[in-house]
Amino acid sequence: MKKYYFDHVATNPLHPAVLEAMMPYFGEKFGNPLSVYEYGSQAKDAIEDAREKVAGLVNAKPAEIIFTASGAEANNFALRGIALAKQNEGKHVLVSRMEHHSILNSARFLEKSGFAVTYLPVNKQGVVDPETVRKSITKETVLISVTHASSEVGTIEPIREIVKVAKEHNIIVHTDAVATTGNIPVDVQELGVDLLTMAAHQFYGPKGAGALYVKQGLRIVPLIYGGIQESGRRAGTENVPAIVGMGKAAEMATAELGQRMEYLRPLRDRLIEAMTGVPNVVLTGDRQNRLPGHASFCVEFIEGEAMLLLLAAKGIFSASGSACSSKALKASPVLLAMGIPSGLAQGSIVFSFGMGNAPEDVDNLLNEFPAVIKRLRDISPYAQGWGDREGGDSCTAKK
Amino acid sequence: MKKYYFDHVATNPLHPAVLEAMMPYFGEKFGNPLSVYEYGSQAKDAIEDAREKVAGLVNAKPAEIIFTASGAEANNFALRGIALAKQNEGKHVLVSRMEHHSILNSARFLEKSGFAVTYLPVNKQGVVDPETVRKSITKETVLISVTHASSEVGTIEPIREIVKVAKEHNIIVHTDAVATTGNIPVDVQELGVDLLTMAAHQFYGPKGAGALYVKQGLRIVPLIYGGIQESGRRAGTENVPAIVGMGKAAEMATAELGQRMEYLRPLRDRLIEAMTGVPNVVLTGDRQNRLPGHASFCVEFIEGEAMLLLLAAKGIFSASGSACSSKALKASPVLLAMGIPSGLAQGSIVFSFGMGNAPEDVDNLLNEFPAVIKRLRDISPYAQGWGDREGGDSCTAKK
Repeated sequence: MKKYYFDHVATNPLHPAVLEAMMPYFGEKFGNPLSVYEYGSQAKDAIEDAREKVAGLVNAKPAEIIFTASGAEANNFALRGIALAKQNEGKHVLVSRMEHHSILNSARFLEKSGFAVTYLPVNKQGVVDPETVRKSITKETVLISVTHASSEVGTIEPIREIVKVAKEHNIIVHTDAVATTGNIPVDVQELGVDLLTMAAHQFYGPKGAGALYVKQGLRIVPLIYGGIQESGRRAGTENVPAIVGMGKAAEMATAELGQRMEYLRPLRDRLIEAMTGVPNVVLTGDRQNRLPGHASFCVEFIEGEAMLLLLAAKGIFSASGSACSSKALKASPVLLAMGIPSGLAQGSIVFSFGMGNAPEDVDNLLNEFPAVIKRLRDISPYAQGWGDREGGDSCTAKK
Repeated sequence: MKKYYFDHVATNPLHPAVLEAMMPYFGEKFGNPLSVYEYGSQAKDAIEDAREKVAGLVNAKPAEIIFTASGAEANNFALRGIALAKQNEGKHVLVSRMEHHSILNSARFLEKSGFAVTYLPVNKQGVVDPETVRKSITKETVLISVTHASSEVGTIEPIREIVKVAKEHNIIVHTDAVATTGNIPVDVQELGVDLLTMAAHQFYGPKGAGALYVKQGLRIVPLIYGGIQESGRRAGTENVPAIVGMGKAAEMATAELGQRMEYLRPLRDRLIEAMTGVPNVVLTGDRQNRLPGHASFCVEFIEGEAMLLLLAAKGIFSASGSACSSKALKASPVLLAMGIPSGLAQGSIVFSFGMGNAPEDVDNLLNEFPAVIKRLRDISPYAQGWGDREGGDSCTAKK
């Protein structure tokens, strides 16, 4: 059976050229970058070359890039590292309700450590209003963290405008750009952020490689203490092959970004246009400001999980909400924050396209998905009138 | 020029069979383990298979293994995670002076967070006396962390005896077994420890893969918050290929452990016997209880760095102290803790053998190393009498 992979927000296949770049570092170039002899210096040089390429992808300086093992690590590092560095200036942090669990749960850790956290509300498209940010700032606020885009609903946030508000009060801004880096233009100068999180496997690089951009001169407390790696800011023997792969993937994304966006948008748009014509299917997230390959829906009266499984049986792979919670079987906090009733939020499904998808793959999806919806609806008690008793206005509320 | 790699404590080459096991996960098996469709389940199954193999290597249960990205991460996780979980019971931690920077600097972080830390002294062989542990325990002590073996001087610590003392007071014990796991028998049941750190690249596995053994039922606060990976104890998309590689390397180490030790010990012993016959060369660490492939020395009147560079020019790669600080050009805190005067500690050099080394490689080393020492001594002002003015009794103090 042919497989259709429409879950590129969960992870991406490794680009063959990236793997090729990594291979020597699994072989003869296996040295520890801190060693003084040639195996060490060739590993060190490879890391610094990758650092330049990753910096280039987001218009940063190489010294502003700290490699981590994941986006989650970089998010923890950013929130806790800045909160600790700034705690004598204030103990209040703002995060949005659109954030990934690695931000939200880091924020909860900060609450347990004596910080106050404000969880910024969003509108029905999942957009954080910069004016809401302004009103939430207090004299104690030391950090604002808002995602660059939500991998659940695809909405791109107005980071530049949020930074403008923050900078009136001299507050540090972090953005989780895991979903955007390598997929849309990400420019730390233009955004004006102080910290930015990336993950290589979101742009055809390897798992096990992430990075945190930290603006030059900004003090951050390490998350992982130890040796002198990453200028003493992140310890642990460097995962040289993964870092090299991240560099190669960044170089390719820099070169191909426009072409990739132009390829993916029509796939997305065709799916959105076709599916929003199906009764009781609503688009989630912003229609205009959204990730190029991202189409997310809520389908009334149906569980997302059931759709995933029936589609998977046809070789079509998609997600219901964030991969990190897809097995939790709870309504997504992001969808609830957008005002979607919990019943409707249970019917969440996300299709995310990548460069391996062909236009014909969308044809196949459009052949199968409405039939899956019909089949599940035919057996749903909610679709037969019970729906009125439980969030019956959910659909209209979203239209 | 032929290369002689004698720095296996810094990192090891990846075993070709390990790379072969990893390769499918860089290719068609690229899924996110949390996804519900087959790409997800095949990745999840691969991780659980690796977890069994890693558990098998140290005689733990699979559920007691938490994968991390490095030994340093696992060490940070252990110290800070237990300290936070236990802080209501007491705020005192014991660590030895033999520890890696990832333990020592985590301990310093705990000090800044309001904990008291006692740094346990060691004897001239670098051994922590269990009686010293006993005397250092207070009513506030919640955690003891002593390395299983020092990668700098090769000494294997009496962990079992330390655990015995700790358990009289119901105190949790962690050991950093990065240098030992896969290289000597490591059995969490026999040692009796509650937590144990491993790193795959120390036993021919990949960089970017480590693990923390956490005894069943023991509560630990996460270091990296986020999704539900690793039972909610360590977030971040799993580095599936690296974890698979760690599993394969663990399986091989389990099968070949005795054979590897028998192969390495004679190489080590021959080098130690020959070099301790060279004037002004002293062995560091314990002669008997030491890592099978580990030979470390201090050479009077000579800088370790100078020896490394001259040897490297002959294709012989070794280290001076811990890789994580080898560029810091300071006398090793571990050597100083063993009572080695700072002048002599500057002359530290470590040779660590691996399965890629042949007995003839030691012949070559024995041909070259004494000549390097002679050449450096001929140009050293300290060797010509100035030594008396600066720690002149250093050599005799060590003999």
